[in-house]
Amino acid sequence: MSTTEYTVTGMTCGHCEMSVREEVSEVPGVQDVQVSHETGRLTVDGSDDVNQDAVIAAVEEAGYSAVRA
Amino acid sequence: MSTTEYTVTGMTCGHCEMSVREEVSEVPGVQDVQVSHETGRLTVDGSDDVNQDAVIAAVEEAGYSAVRA
Repeated sequence: MSTTEYTVTGMTCGHCEMSVREEVSEVPGVQDVQVSHETGRLTVDGSDDVNQDAVIAAVEEAGYSAVRA
Repeated sequence: MSTTEYTVTGMTCGHCEMSVREEVSEVPGVQDVQVSHETGRLTVDGSDDVNQDAVIAAVEEAGYSAVRA
């Protein structure tokens, strides 16, 4: 089990958070996703082998940008 | 056929526009909805008997506020 944090840019509202949450939740091994458009912070809980590049790609799929915090 | 314009406050992104469009499209008589989060302008095309209070209520249902422009 591990927790990884990312900084997401471009989210403006709760709908944006929902889009990010939906995409990141589909990454294999992810068990919990917390995201705030106000802080830009994305926190991903999951198995130790969650692919961080896949998380970043999922955020981009939702229409935003992410980097490891 | 008539066109009515409203000013909507609170939309911040394309997801917000989509929420407004979905709710307003369900108002009886409405045939086309155009909405911009950048200008806050909502344009509703439909039959002459579209209930303007119902349009405003639909915007509120989506989580925003509207007044006749």
